[in-house]
Amino acid sequence: MIRNHHFEKVPSRYLFQEIRQKALQFQQKHPEAKLIRLGIGDTTEPIGPYIASQMELAAKNLATREGYFGYGPEQGIPELREAISKTVYNSQVSADDIFVSDGAKCDIGRLQFLFGPDAKIALQDPAYPVYLDSSLIYRGGNITFLPCTPENNFVPDITLAKGCDVLFLCMPNNPTGTVFTRTQLEQIVDYARKHHILIVFDTAYSFYVQGDYPKSIYEIDGAKEVAIEVGSFSKIAGFSGVRLGWTVVPEANRLKSDWMRINGTFFNGASILSQKGGIACLSQEGIKEVQAQVAFYLENTKMLAKAVKEHGFETYGGEHSPYLWARLKGLTSWQTFDMLLEQANIVTTPGSGFGPAGEGFIRISGFATRATVEQAIQNITKIDILTNKR
Amino acid sequence: MIRNHHFEKVPSRYLFQEIRQKALQFQQKHPEAKLIRLGIGDTTEPIGPYIASQMELAAKNLATREGYFGYGPEQGIPELREAISKTVYNSQVSADDIFVSDGAKCDIGRLQFLFGPDAKIALQDPAYPVYLDSSLIYRGGNITFLPCTPENNFVPDITLAKGCDVLFLCMPNNPTGTVFTRTQLEQIVDYARKHHILIVFDTAYSFYVQGDYPKSIYEIDGAKEVAIEVGSFSKIAGFSGVRLGWTVVPEANRLKSDWMRINGTFFNGASILSQKGGIACLSQEGIKEVQAQVAFYLENTKMLAKAVKEHGFETYGGEHSPYLWARLKGLTSWQTFDMLLEQANIVTTPGSGFGPAGEGFIRISGFATRATVEQAIQNITKIDILTNKR
Repeated sequence: MIRNHHFEKVPSRYLFQEIRQKALQFQQKHPEAKLIRLGIGDTTEPIGPYIASQMELAAKNLATREGYFGYGPEQGIPELREAISKTVYNSQVSADDIFVSDGAKCDIGRLQFLFGPDAKIALQDPAYPVYLDSSLIYRGGNITFLPCTPENNFVPDITLAKGCDVLFLCMPNNPTGTVFTRTQLEQIVDYARKHHILIVFDTAYSFYVQGDYPKSIYEIDGAKEVAIEVGSFSKIAGFSGVRLGWTVVPEANRLKSDWMRINGTFFNGASILSQKGGIACLSQEGIKEVQAQVAFYLENTKMLAKAVKEHGFETYGGEHSPYLWARLKGLTSWQTFDMLLEQANIVTTPGSGFGPAGEGFIRISGFATRATVEQAIQNITKIDILTNKR
Repeated sequence: MIRNHHFEKVPSRYLFQEIRQKALQFQQKHPEAKLIRLGIGDTTEPIGPYIASQMELAAKNLATREGYFGYGPEQGIPELREAISKTVYNSQVSADDIFVSDGAKCDIGRLQFLFGPDAKIALQDPAYPVYLDSSLIYRGGNITFLPCTPENNFVPDITLAKGCDVLFLCMPNNPTGTVFTRTQLEQIVDYARKHHILIVFDTAYSFYVQGDYPKSIYEIDGAKEVAIEVGSFSKIAGFSGVRLGWTVVPEANRLKSDWMRINGTFFNGASILSQKGGIACLSQEGIKEVQAQVAFYLENTKMLAKAVKEHGFETYGGEHSPYLWARLKGLTSWQTFDMLLEQANIVTTPGSGFGPAGEGFIRISGFATRATVEQAIQNITKIDILTNKR
């Protein structure tokens, strides 16, 4: 029977499935242990009441002739696209260039069809595993890594992407939490323009950016010609289970009609209930609920940062992102993962799962209830002895 | 800038986008005309009150700590998979082999990754355009057509698929409305087993099957080793906008771990709201609402069949499916489409859009309100003169 031979080149498990498995095994061995899950970045806080009430209303309306909704426009309902244009992009991106999706991960997968089988792909290393995995399943190879380490302040050397067709960037970065300054981003866009590199700019965490750092690549002149931007409601409104995101494919980069064709063939629009929720998120009332969630998770992350720093970890990120990027020098990622699991019953994500340059690090997620964060901080004190003895 | 060169081989517009465009142009020329849309198969009836109420409740619960739901299991929530196993498959398919999706179209796209870049694909002709379009965008060619015409009772000659790796079948067929008998399906499965052909069996319309015809390919012995089955809530519960479907990848065909990997990489689960709606659809109360919708659309289709037959059309299908497959001998598909649009203000789907063997036919959809169907029947009388004069 047929099999896609590219699977031989892909790790057999998705990173977060592997972590789940490890945590499960630990729990079976230690049924009394109360695991603290700071691994997968999954939202924990209930959706804001106004936003939820609008989805409730949408569901209710589906049972009425006036409110029933079948197939929507594949690009998403105009009201939502207008709201994204206005609220997220301050009207600097046209609603016509915005495509609503069922989440950033799904759109990153579909984007592979836009680039085709011969594309040469460049990735930040470390990076969200889906860029690499979807590229490998789609074309089996042709990947260039751009290492991001403390040595280069986690800002990739863009000249390493020379000869590549596509560069995936994520800002604020998952996992390192890095944001680029305006000047750094200008240099990247400039280089991409000169060398015909298409940038896929993942802004799933853009609402976490503080101060004057750019929140969208389209704040940079000329970016529309070379950049596609991916956005998500998952981490800003707790929509990881509701499923909603968007992708901007500007007219100026001439890929829009292909992208429309891909959306028409591989997708049938996000759920109407999620889309109505998205409109609510971006309303005056909803945006307050969104901002409160973002502030809550940022505070979690700061609390965790303080605790792990005090106990010997070197930490990065967490200021403009809900993730900490941390290491205990001398230990590998999985060693640190195991140690935290065993000594503090905390599940993290091993940095090596995000790429070779992530080796030695772990990612600690701020997506948790406050009680969980407080318990984690308490448990971290237990690892003192170990880190001192090492 | 990069472009997927396969797009040169794909029609630039998705069929239903093209029809929408044509209808729009006609409407602009004839603003007074009241267009009757029997083209795209889009549900029109409000969702059953019980089913909608359960989605409403799910939305409400998302605002509570107890009812909040982030990322679900990528395979879908167990309760829904159990319900599909029990209600759709009479427990003959394990819930472990069922993967919940955001719709059949999306899963057909993702299935391409399972088959890989070198797969040789066989298709019924005519067929739902997504099989062909997704195959072309993914691998640019390698397609074999199995013609289905009145001459072979729309049952494909399976020996034409010899040497192919994958065969897409749809039953009840979209667009022809054909169902296979048990014996016919046994022969197909038998041939696939002997020649190592993987069957993708699309059952989006299986609830429309009447009497003793098989409703699932797994009713045939040995099918689990060679068949993947795709299902959908869109056409049975009016979920075309809610988005929910499933795919069965049985353990026995050894592709399950790759499929799990694809789901983990390219998908993040269907919306929790849609999944709760799906559970409601398959409950005792919900299934009655589902059956009522199916019966309603079938009745529409029968009314339309009678009308077009009386006015000179040769018609097929419509007994086990919400679609009629009809022709006026001597006219091409687009000629018939234009004639119906101009003379009766009815939008249909030109059969040639479903594949070369569809030439001469149109597809008439029974997805409409009763008032629309009655108006359509009235308008069809207007074309009498033309068909007689021809």
